[in-house]
Amino acid sequence: MSRRITKPVYLGKQKVGGTAPISVQSMTKTDTRDIKSTVNQIKELEEYGCEIIRCAVPDMEAAKALKEIKKSINIPLVADIHFHHELALESIRSGVDCLRLNPGNIRDSQKVKEVVTLAKERDIPIRIGVNFGSLPPVGQIGQTRSASRGKDGVNLLPKSSKIDSNSYTAVDHMVDTALWEIGILESLDFEQIKISLKAFEVDTTIEAYRRLAKLVPYPFHLGITESGTAKSGSIRSAIGLGILLYEGIGDTIRVSLSDDSKEEIITGYEILKSLNLRTKGTTLVACPSCGRADINVTKLANMVDEALKLVDKNIKVAVMGCEVNGPGEAKDADIGIAGGVGKAIIFKKGVKSRVVDESEMFEALIEEINNLEVEESNV
Amino acid sequence: MSRRITKPVYLGKQKVGGTAPISVQSMTKTDTRDIKSTVNQIKELEEYGCEIIRCAVPDMEAAKALKEIKKSINIPLVADIHFHHELALESIRSGVDCLRLNPGNIRDSQKVKEVVTLAKERDIPIRIGVNFGSLPPVGQIGQTRSASRGKDGVNLLPKSSKIDSNSYTAVDHMVDTALWEIGILESLDFEQIKISLKAFEVDTTIEAYRRLAKLVPYPFHLGITESGTAKSGSIRSAIGLGILLYEGIGDTIRVSLSDDSKEEIITGYEILKSLNLRTKGTTLVACPSCGRADINVTKLANMVDEALKLVDKNIKVAVMGCEVNGPGEAKDADIGIAGGVGKAIIFKKGVKSRVVDESEMFEALIEEINNLEVEESNV
Repeated sequence: MSRRITKPVYLGKQKVGGTAPISVQSMTKTDTRDIKSTVNQIKELEEYGCEIIRCAVPDMEAAKALKEIKKSINIPLVADIHFHHELALESIRSGVDCLRLNPGNIRDSQKVKEVVTLAKERDIPIRIGVNFGSLPPVGQIGQTRSASRGKDGVNLLPKSSKIDSNSYTAVDHMVDTALWEIGILESLDFEQIKISLKAFEVDTTIEAYRRLAKLVPYPFHLGITESGTAKSGSIRSAIGLGILLYEGIGDTIRVSLSDDSKEEIITGYEILKSLNLRTKGTTLVACPSCGRADINVTKLANMVDEALKLVDKNIKVAVMGCEVNGPGEAKDADIGIAGGVGKAIIFKKGVKSRVVDESEMFEALIEEINNLEVEESNV
Repeated sequence: MSRRITKPVYLGKQKVGGTAPISVQSMTKTDTRDIKSTVNQIKELEEYGCEIIRCAVPDMEAAKALKEIKKSINIPLVADIHFHHELALESIRSGVDCLRLNPGNIRDSQKVKEVVTLAKERDIPIRIGVNFGSLPPVGQIGQTRSASRGKDGVNLLPKSSKIDSNSYTAVDHMVDTALWEIGILESLDFEQIKISLKAFEVDTTIEAYRRLAKLVPYPFHLGITESGTAKSGSIRSAIGLGILLYEGIGDTIRVSLSDDSKEEIITGYEILKSLNLRTKGTTLVACPSCGRADINVTKLANMVDEALKLVDKNIKVAVMGCEVNGPGEAKDADIGIAGGVGKAIIFKKGVKSRVVDESEMFEALIEEINNLEVEESNV
């Protein structure tokens, strides 16, 4: 699993791409014009480890509000722009650290140039966000990416016979759109680019990223669009992002969920932790329980999970139902508990350390976790 | 994504492997000797679509209880056996449809032969369940799989120099264990085999399955062990199982969660649905909401998700925050709703069909879903 080599961009101090740890980001769900609510939401997300935050910019009032918001938060701010170049300009003036903007959406090349010129001046990157649901018509995709940057665009579009045929797939359409949008920025000598290629379908998303990964050096923002609620959406996102990340593709991730934004952050870290790409707080090893269990594993595991949500120790905690498999199954854990009849054994690094009554096992485990001396690192 | 070709086995009428749909299974969390609770749990799981159920068999009373349990349920029953061959024999006599048993655990070859002979007589398969946490010591792994089945075992173990060295990995150990266990059954001319290779670490699990996939023709039962609570465990399982399934590896899955077994089933189907490997009930497309949303998407999406949990219509439902992106983003959906200011638009297959007040949008959407005429198929 060697990581794809990308040309890093910087959102303030936050590096994305290159050798930077894969960052976890989200988007606010408040009305951006409501500065107080937006700032509160961002502050809460920071607590959960959010590293980049994006706000929708539907109008000029929102673009101006970003100035106050930016002052009150500690993580880089991205302005999400559609169609209107003046909202992009105002957002940059408000001090945002990045734009999410598809230049092809703006149409007028002079307006695109104005935005790019100001972004260059302020030294901020632009994310091109290609979404399956809002692709431009194939006929509208113009000159695509020049093989030699900044020169006249070479039309890399498939021949029209191919476009008309059924063999022109959603993946073709997404990748061609991305190349076209990238080409517009490159033709203006702008290369501080991040790219996303999101679809609801996992396979479409994966194939699009895989293909573009071979064609451009820019970092990728991974996501599955409209993926659903906390339950179904996190599973769909975990599969889509997980497959790409396991192949070394992806530099920053956003899990889109119809739920609290903090669920997006928690899920994002769970995905990265599952692949050992980040360590962030505790990792819980918990047996599913079965007819052999001597204690209520489910209850204990969920209590421990909840209690450790904001504990910033990078440790592996094991909650196991029976004494037989407990120590063996969790031998890699920093600390673990295995149920016995009416009692439980606490072990450290697979070695038995203490026997406690079933009634006090939760408190004892938490006590032992709090006593553990470990690095409090985020990366 | 072409599926790995495997030699199917049958658990009663339930085919696993070959061209059979990938099945979703679980394990009871009740005391198997408590027949009533166990049956109740299985009946509930059947409602959620569980296709195979396994029960722990810690003692003879549990083995005997399987007889009554089997009579009261509609899905194949698997007996989970460790160490004691007499529990395997009694479980077979109780009428189970499959054993989960590692012959290497039983040690005595005569006892293994007794079990295999009875399994053959009753025509039931055996799943070999290799778990990272309970691997036999490398030195204990004996003769491994014969290249020519049923002949004297050929020792395929890596040379001891390799075993002693650090280059002998967890994956080597898991795959060698599986080959050894398989070899024991094959040497008794038994080939109705299913295999699992579970670890907590996603990469260990994936690499073990990938490697064994090239060496044996038997169907795979996929799982990640001790994966955690409903939240973290479902993400870890989704990534591990998702990566393998996307490569065409896997014939039946079990998501191990420290939670209600029905969560395991729901998660299992969500994984398969995300990869379009099964259709089962509704698939929800829901936007994450942002500063552009005109309605409370999160609330509506979760209400819809809950309401549709047991609806057995294979449809895609979209819940979108704003009128601008709504129809576009969800154009593949069978039915969708997109928020506007104080109202919402219901659309079918991307075409606007009805405008409703915000206050009645949930009821209206459910009404439209109930009116939809679709196939009620499970596969």
